[in-house]
Amino acid sequence: MNDQQELRELLQQIRDGRMNVEQGMQVLRNQMVQDLGHTKIDLHRELRNGFPEVIYAEGKTPRQVGEIFGHMRAHGNVLATRVTSKTAEHVLSLFPDACYDPLGRTLTHVHEEPSPGRGKTVIVTAGTSDLGVAHEARTTCRMLGIPATIVSDVGVAGIHRLFDQMEHLRQATVLIVIAGMEGALASVIGGLVDKPIIAVPTSVGYGAHFAGLAALLGMLASCASGISVVNIDNGFGAACAACRITRLLGQKDHAD
Amino acid sequence: MNDQQELRELLQQIRDGRMNVEQGMQVLRNQMVQDLGHTKIDLHRELRNGFPEVIYAEGKTPRQVGEIFGHMRAHGNVLATRVTSKTAEHVLSLFPDACYDPLGRTLTHVHEEPSPGRGKTVIVTAGTSDLGVAHEARTTCRMLGIPATIVSDVGVAGIHRLFDQMEHLRQATVLIVIAGMEGALASVIGGLVDKPIIAVPTSVGYGAHFAGLAALLGMLASCASGISVVNIDNGFGAACAACRITRLLGQKDHAD
Amino acid sequence: MNDQQELRELLQQIRDGRMNVEQGMQVLRNQMVQDLGHTKIDLHRELRNGFPEVIYAEGKTPRQVGEIFGHMRAHGNVLATRVTSKTAEHVLSLFPDACYDPLGRTLTHVHEEPSPGRGKTVIVTAGTSDLGVAHEARTTCRMLGIPATIVSDVGVAGIHRLFDQMEHLRQATVLIVIAGMEGALASVIGGLVDKPIIAVPTSVGYGAHFAGLAALLGMLASCASGISVVNIDNGFGAACAACRITRLLGQKDHAD
Amino acid sequence: MNDQQELRELLQQIRDGRMNVEQGMQVLRNQMVQDLGHTKIDLHRELRNGFPEVIYAEGKTPRQVGEIFGHMRAHGNVLATRVTSKTAEHVLSLFPDACYDPLGRTLTHVHEEPSPGRGKTVIVTAGTSDLGVAHEARTTCRMLGIPATIVSDVGVAGIHRLFDQMEHLRQATVLIVIAGMEGALASVIGGLVDKPIIAVPTSVGYGAHFAGLAALLGMLASCASGISVVNIDNGFGAACAACRITRLLGQKDHAD
Amino acid sequence: MNDQQELRELLQQIRDGRMNVEQGMQVLRNQMVQDLGHTKIDLHRELRNGFPEVIYAEGKTPRQVGEIFGHMRAHGNVLATRVTSKTAEHVLSLFPDACYDPLGRTLTHVHEEPSPGRGKTVIVTAGTSDLGVAHEARTTCRMLGIPATIVSDVGVAGIHRLFDQMEHLRQATVLIVIAGMEGALASVIGGLVDKPIIAVPTSVGYGAHFAGLAALLGMLASCASGISVVNIDNGFGAACAACRITRLLGQKDHAD
Amino acid sequence: MNDQQELRELLQQIRDGRMNVEQGMQVLRNQMVQDLGHTKIDLHRELRNGFPEVIYAEGKTPRQVGEIFGHMRAHGNVLATRVTSKTAEHVLSLFPDACYDPLGRTLTHVHEEPSPGRGKTVIVTAGTSDLGVAHEARTTCRMLGIPATIVSDVGVAGIHRLFDQMEHLRQATVLIVIAGMEGALASVIGGLVDKPIIAVPTSVGYGAHFAGLAALLGMLASCASGISVVNIDNGFGAACAACRITRLLGQKDHAD
Amino acid sequence: MNDQQELRELLQQIRDGRMNVEQGMQVLRNQMVQDLGHTKIDLHRELRNGFPEVIYAEGKTPRQVGEIFGHMRAHGNVLATRVTSKTAEHVLSLFPDACYDPLGRTLTHVHEEPSPGRGKTVIVTAGTSDLGVAHEARTTCRMLGIPATIVSDVGVAGIHRLFDQMEHLRQATVLIVIAGMEGALASVIGGLVDKPIIAVPTSVGYGAHFAGLAALLGMLASCASGISVVNIDNGFGAACAACRITRLLGQKDHAD
Amino acid sequence: MNDQQELRELLQQIRDGRMNVEQGMQVLRNQMVQDLGHTKIDLHRELRNGFPEVIYAEGKTPRQVGEIFGHMRAHGNVLATRVTSKTAEHVLSLFPDACYDPLGRTLTHVHEEPSPGRGKTVIVTAGTSDLGVAHEARTTCRMLGIPATIVSDVGVAGIHRLFDQMEHLRQATVLIVIAGMEGALASVIGGLVDKPIIAVPTSVGYGAHFAGLAALLGMLASCASGISVVNIDNGFGAACAACRITRLLGQKDHAD
Repeated sequence: MNDQQELRELLQQIRDGRMNVEQGMQVLRNQMVQDLGHTKIDLHRELRNGFPEVIYAEGKTPRQVGEIFGHMRAHGNVLATRVTSKTAEHVLSLFPDACYDPLGRTLTHVHEEPSPGRGKTVIVTAGTSDLGVAHEARTTCRMLGIPATIVSDVGVAGIHRLFDQMEHLRQATVLIVIAGMEGALASVIGGLVDKPIIAVPTSVGYGAHFAGLAALLGMLASCASGISVVNIDNGFGAACAACRITRLLGQKDHAD
Repeated sequence: MNDQQELRELLQQIRDGRMNVEQGMQVLRNQMVQDLGHTKIDLHRELRNGFPEVIYAEGKTPRQVGEIFGHMRAHGNVLATRVTSKTAEHVLSLFPDACYDPLGRTLTHVHEEPSPGRGKTVIVTAGTSDLGVAHEARTTCRMLGIPATIVSDVGVAGIHRLFDQMEHLRQATVLIVIAGMEGALASVIGGLVDKPIIAVPTSVGYGAHFAGLAALLGMLASCASGISVVNIDNGFGAACAACRITRLLGQKDHAD
Repeated sequence: MNDQQELRELLQQIRDGRMNVEQGMQVLRNQMVQDLGHTKIDLHRELRNGFPEVIYAEGKTPRQVGEIFGHMRAHGNVLATRVTSKTAEHVLSLFPDACYDPLGRTLTHVHEEPSPGRGKTVIVTAGTSDLGVAHEARTTCRMLGIPATIVSDVGVAGIHRLFDQMEHLRQATVLIVIAGMEGALASVIGGLVDKPIIAVPTSVGYGAHFAGLAALLGMLASCASGISVVNIDNGFGAACAACRITRLLGQKDHAD
Repeated sequence: MNDQQELRELLQQIRDGRMNVEQGMQVLRNQMVQDLGHTKIDLHRELRNGFPEVIYAEGKTPRQVGEIFGHMRAHGNVLATRVTSKTAEHVLSLFPDACYDPLGRTLTHVHEEPSPGRGKTVIVTAGTSDLGVAHEARTTCRMLGIPATIVSDVGVAGIHRLFDQMEHLRQATVLIVIAGMEGALASVIGGLVDKPIIAVPTSVGYGAHFAGLAALLGMLASCASGISVVNIDNGFGAACAACRITRLLGQKDHAD
Repeated sequence: MNDQQELRELLQQIRDGRMNVEQGMQVLRNQMVQDLGHTKIDLHRELRNGFPEVIYAEGKTPRQVGEIFGHMRAHGNVLATRVTSKTAEHVLSLFPDACYDPLGRTLTHVHEEPSPGRGKTVIVTAGTSDLGVAHEARTTCRMLGIPATIVSDVGVAGIHRLFDQMEHLRQATVLIVIAGMEGALASVIGGLVDKPIIAVPTSVGYGAHFAGLAALLGMLASCASGISVVNIDNGFGAACAACRITRLLGQKDHAD
Repeated sequence: MNDQQELRELLQQIRDGRMNVEQGMQVLRNQMVQDLGHTKIDLHRELRNGFPEVIYAEGKTPRQVGEIFGHMRAHGNVLATRVTSKTAEHVLSLFPDACYDPLGRTLTHVHEEPSPGRGKTVIVTAGTSDLGVAHEARTTCRMLGIPATIVSDVGVAGIHRLFDQMEHLRQATVLIVIAGMEGALASVIGGLVDKPIIAVPTSVGYGAHFAGLAALLGMLASCASGISVVNIDNGFGAACAACRITRLLGQKDHAD
Repeated sequence: MNDQQELRELLQQIRDGRMNVEQGMQVLRNQMVQDLGHTKIDLHRELRNGFPEVIYAEGKTPRQVGEIFGHMRAHGNVLATRVTSKTAEHVLSLFPDACYDPLGRTLTHVHEEPSPGRGKTVIVTAGTSDLGVAHEARTTCRMLGIPATIVSDVGVAGIHRLFDQMEHLRQATVLIVIAGMEGALASVIGGLVDKPIIAVPTSVGYGAHFAGLAALLGMLASCASGISVVNIDNGFGAACAACRITRLLGQKDHAD
Repeated sequence: MNDQQELRELLQQIRDGRMNVEQGMQVLRNQMVQDLGHTKIDLHRELRNGFPEVIYAEGKTPRQVGEIFGHMRAHGNVLATRVTSKTAEHVLSLFPDACYDPLGRTLTHVHEEPSPGRGKTVIVTAGTSDLGVAHEARTTCRMLGIPATIVSDVGVAGIHRLFDQMEHLRQATVLIVIAGMEGALASVIGGLVDKPIIAVPTSVGYGAHFAGLAALLGMLASCASGISVVNIDNGFGAACAACRITRLLGQKDHAD
């Protein structure tokens, strides 16, 4: 990773006496946080928890998103999530080479395609209506360099559609299972597959579904062991959790 | 049914002038409601909605339950539900031939075994911990004259246990599906079987299960069509719903 | 039923050696699931749980609904529920012979009127505002071949309106009781009629009604025995539950 | 009322110069609030909102209740509510002439029977299990001088039991309707009777009843007009509300 | 009351043999319920619980409201509540003499001003934002013939504004107290005034107010005795409850 | 303070006999409450709890806000909160010198800049999306004469951004900590700084955040001692709480 | 403060070369955190946020509490909260000079009475049942060196009891207002007093009070400006919040 | 794994014709599910999702647990969770070599120590009160053959205790973060470490913590990316999720 390389050099310069401590502090601080007034862009986040900073567009004005997008774009790839079409239009007018996915509501700028990591993430949805969340997850995976594919519409109301896909599912390194309604798909897959499963409840449903609460509680109370859950409709978070897992695969200290 | 027979005769006597209206009123009223002060026993309920009155023991003192039990026992079979062991002891000391099931918490007096009706009710449970509710349902079925059997511990965490029982399930007239945790069993069976399904969420689970709320919401939001739900832990109600259905089978006007 | 006929023939061909197992698998799989990329249409669902697949339009784009509608239309009757007027306009522009009911928000294509089954379903509403849900239920009944009529606006605030209709209600095979506010209508009818009752809470009400929660909890906690409940505003589900019941009537093994 | 008499004399003494303002203040203050350290007994509350102070025993230690009971007993009648049997034992050991009702959990000392006011309050319960709340209401009525009777166990599951009592109910000045489960009794009575109705939801029920929430929401969302509701299990509050109403009857300025 | 007069004559005709029972039934039934297909107008509701039927416009289409309005208008005064401006426009285009109050969202037709009853209802609001609910209450009072005035904006944040109005409040027969936020106004007035108090929580507030839940729970849990509560924002219901109370004042059997 | 000065003179006039009691009452009452019909403007509120009256615009019509704004403007500075852009336009058309902040949704008229009090309030936000609430707080501080600055976007996902600002935070007299999502920022700052901390949960977040509930519960349950919390999104309330604290600093009786 | 003194000396030794950095680190680490295996006692917490570590006994076994109590006792004063009588017995058997308050459930060891700070904290309770929480707050104040007194039982149901105490309340530096039921006391005091107010909702109440939820929501939604709230029953937290405020009073940089 | 070995041999026998299909079916079925009447022990679960069946003791009687324990003990290692001390006593009386951990409430029989897998799981707790859940997690890890250690009592109220342990945390393969109160520890660690994080909310807390709800919602809404969550107090589930992850490490197809 580029960031780590630069950091190591800087520290070496300090150690060798080519730079004094105060100068080093100054350089580091400038590199790490770019202050736009309303927002502090955290450029070195990747060094700490392994994720580049992402623009969470909800609650931000189109102008704010555009400004942050521009600054981050100058440093490399950019991912913005929860982008309304109105905000997308504004940003696209500034940066016509950005790419907007209206179903997943993501806006991306790919300066350089992330080099694909190890492992295979399979994103499974219970119904067509869950596809938006699946798209958010897949785009996030791509930006994090995780190979990912979507298997859609295999909910338990027609359980043979799921069984048709079992071979595919069993080959996954990590499974992201996205379901609204009662969220039973996570339990069923959890009982059949021994891989890490990240369940995403969606707000698809009505009445006593209470905007995703039914699926959320169901997944948390699942009778299948070892399923973990992220927030309702949080395709982005599920992809990040998958990334935390697949990153383990290439690490020497575990694999030998 | 006995009750209907008696009623018809009475009305005939009035029509024939053998009894005047006021006398008839008196007789009917006395027969219908027996007033114990704290409780009005509704002896003719069976005439209206087809269910004999049942003692719901929760919130009643042992003495109250004992008194009502005694009065109803003089008219035929008795079923009391939600009976604590303390109340059961009191009633058994008064009527040693009553029968207490500590798992299902029912107390019964069977004067005459109800003649078995048509149809076959299969009571399915997801786990061993749901057995108490299944017992309440089975005892209620028996008192209503519905043949019923229990298939226990076939939850979706080990879905092949369910598939082993599919033949059995497909032969049912009505299915009562009892599950705690996320309640996914109802959805899976609902997708595989075309018979009436009454789902009973149970309070088995912990944490975000919120005493049955997760299973309840999950069953209501089920992606399988045509599942209907009764209250949490309500084995009694599920059996009554099954009874309303199986009673249809013997009725001439529908069957030809 | 057509589907079953075709299936039997296919299996016979395999048995007779006219088709080998692999070919049979291929044919079946193709027939069963039609994969549109975003959606897997489950054409054989009817074989398993007795319901043809239905388009749940909420959360789907007009284009997705149009595409699925077109594919299913090629195989027979189509029912889409929760269709907004905007989506309806799009589909009608593609298939002008489709039929949209704005009150029940259903969109249908009737290739061949389903042959009417046995039994009589009566749909009862507490108030005029519950009519949309009743329409969804009635249209679903029609598509499933269940004779159904609506009795509207007989809520308990004017209980004599209900009593005027008792004769009508008593002749039903199954009752679907639709009520918002406190949902008391289900309890009252449940105490007066001995037929299967499927209660549908509606989101009609305000304030402490919490979008149907008051009616839902009230119906679940009903003091009348054997009422079962479907999700808030779920007229479709209630009709399916009624269908699971009325289908029992024509079956030989129960009726003799 | 005694209190008002004393107050008038005092003010007259001040006006006549027999007592100066500071002395008057002193006397009044002493009379009004008796300070026990942990509790300030509000002896003149009756002058303001018409209710004598009542001991709410929940969350108070037996010793605290005993001490307050003793002080109030010295000034006249005493009513304590939510008294556990343990606290009752302690107070009875101090004041053996106090009277404990274990069902309604009230503890009373009647120095002088309150002279009965006008109007007739009828307390109606849906089931036997609601009797405890009805007792609390009746005892409170008695202490406030309101004639009150209980009609118990007339819930809507057997609606003819209610119709048998309609004549009785129509003669009431005020109705207190106490019901657990779905609380439908309040709606039904509200549609049949034109008198003030105070609905009391009770915690009788289980599962999705959520300790009275179902009945509370149902009564608030009732389709019958003009029903007002007090807190779950609050028989005391319902009696006070009835008292505020029946007190109007004797007042000259309204009645002519 | 007109309705009662007509009914008495009819019964007398039957008694005198001028009309037979079947004819009488026919006349009554026709008079009582006017069936518009979607709605059964309950013309005799006033005979039973004292309230004329009112149009609850929420969830009804403008056309439905217009149709019902027209039919009821032919029989006398009309009150419709929860009327959106869009529906109001439609009805006003049909019946230009109807009167719409956009703040209280009521639509009325006054054929004959109801003769004012006894008693004085004072409607108190905590803040200006609660005025819409107060208007709904006042219009309902007027249509029921109850004299009513509004005292607005006297919430406890400036408690002296309340004390300035105490004299006014003490002269009321019934108080309707309308408050959002924490709803404390009901408790404070309840501690100062001995008249019947109907508390109306409003949805005014934000965040943890949860659309009226905070005020509702606060009023139910009020430390002041004998306050009863109606649904959130339910000015109409509060007026009906006041009406049930003030009607008592003119009745002979209580007042002497 | 001006108000107190005027009041003291008035009382002196009464004491000196230059004005009689009734006249004094009249003057005071007029000064204190200005009655606009729908609203009683509480001009002397500052005398009681130290805050000038503020216009809470939510639920008020543009015209009402304009009218109140005009009356208060005649007496000095004005602050209106929760002002929609539509209402702002209306008021600005009447009073073009008013100032609207669309992010914080405040509308102000500054007749005379409040003289700055003691102490330093630092407003900290977890993310850019919390800035609107921070603006409401800062504007309120300014109108109350409290020096305040904003430190934005230092949430715990990049905890070093917070540590960079620790020096700044430690110099504060009072900290207002504004955070959505899980609200963890309040706990972390609470563990590091010993100054008064007022936590403001915001509605920024989605899914299981439930419009601020997650942050609210998290802040209330914080493991850091002595954090107190105001309502969701309540920047105004937080500033008032800060004002109650900083006002203590100049008071003689505490400081020596 | 002792801790700061020791720390300064240590750093001076390092600066003077009397101790090297590694030794200093070792000493500091040892002093700061004492590791008991299950618990890390944070002895220097006082340096960071001004509060000595306190034992939160809920969820800890008597043995664990005893062990932690013993270790902290060796370093000075100790405060344990939420101590059951069973745990208290165990600890008292080990350290007979510890002091247990069963009402407030605190267990203390006072090695040296904390020197009293500036300011005056007044703890106000609405009812006698809130006294336990008030005791917890007062004991915490004492251990933190804040002068504090309790004014109990002045709830708004008898508002003159509150007005009798206004003079007392106005002299407070900080007010802790403790109330269950609807929690209206906080709003009323907030409208009358201009000092910092920390509101503590209590779990005193029943039914729709939902274990403190009604009071909590009411206090958060209070119409009085600038009230801040701590968790239900959290007397300890309220005292800490008061401490954060009163500590400001003696600080030079603010007071001149 | 042993199970897989046996299965392969069986299938080979069938392929080689040494066993016919029906015999194979019989053997498999017998091996897979052992039916105790109330419970079907799923002996081959390990083949499907990689977890041996575990006894969830909540809601089971001591006798049932004892019986299942005995049967599973005959096949190898046994783990029972949520075991009350009463049940433990019963089972220990039957199998004195079983091992009970009262803090974690697990009961185990270790026939053969599971051979330790790859990777290192670090279990972190915020407070001493969370230790029970940590014990459940650690025991589960041990039974699944995952090396695991506990780092306890490093909550964010004393954030330096956490920083002292960072080196330790960074060396983990997977982190299980267990926290009650507001659950902020998960967010802070998530921002600092790039490994998979499984967050476990606990029911430690009170009042507005609502038995773990505050921590659960906070963790789901966490601002740190890629944290996934299991049910409240579910140490067992967290260990299983960790197991699903660490099992990936030894698999050839990923590691090269």
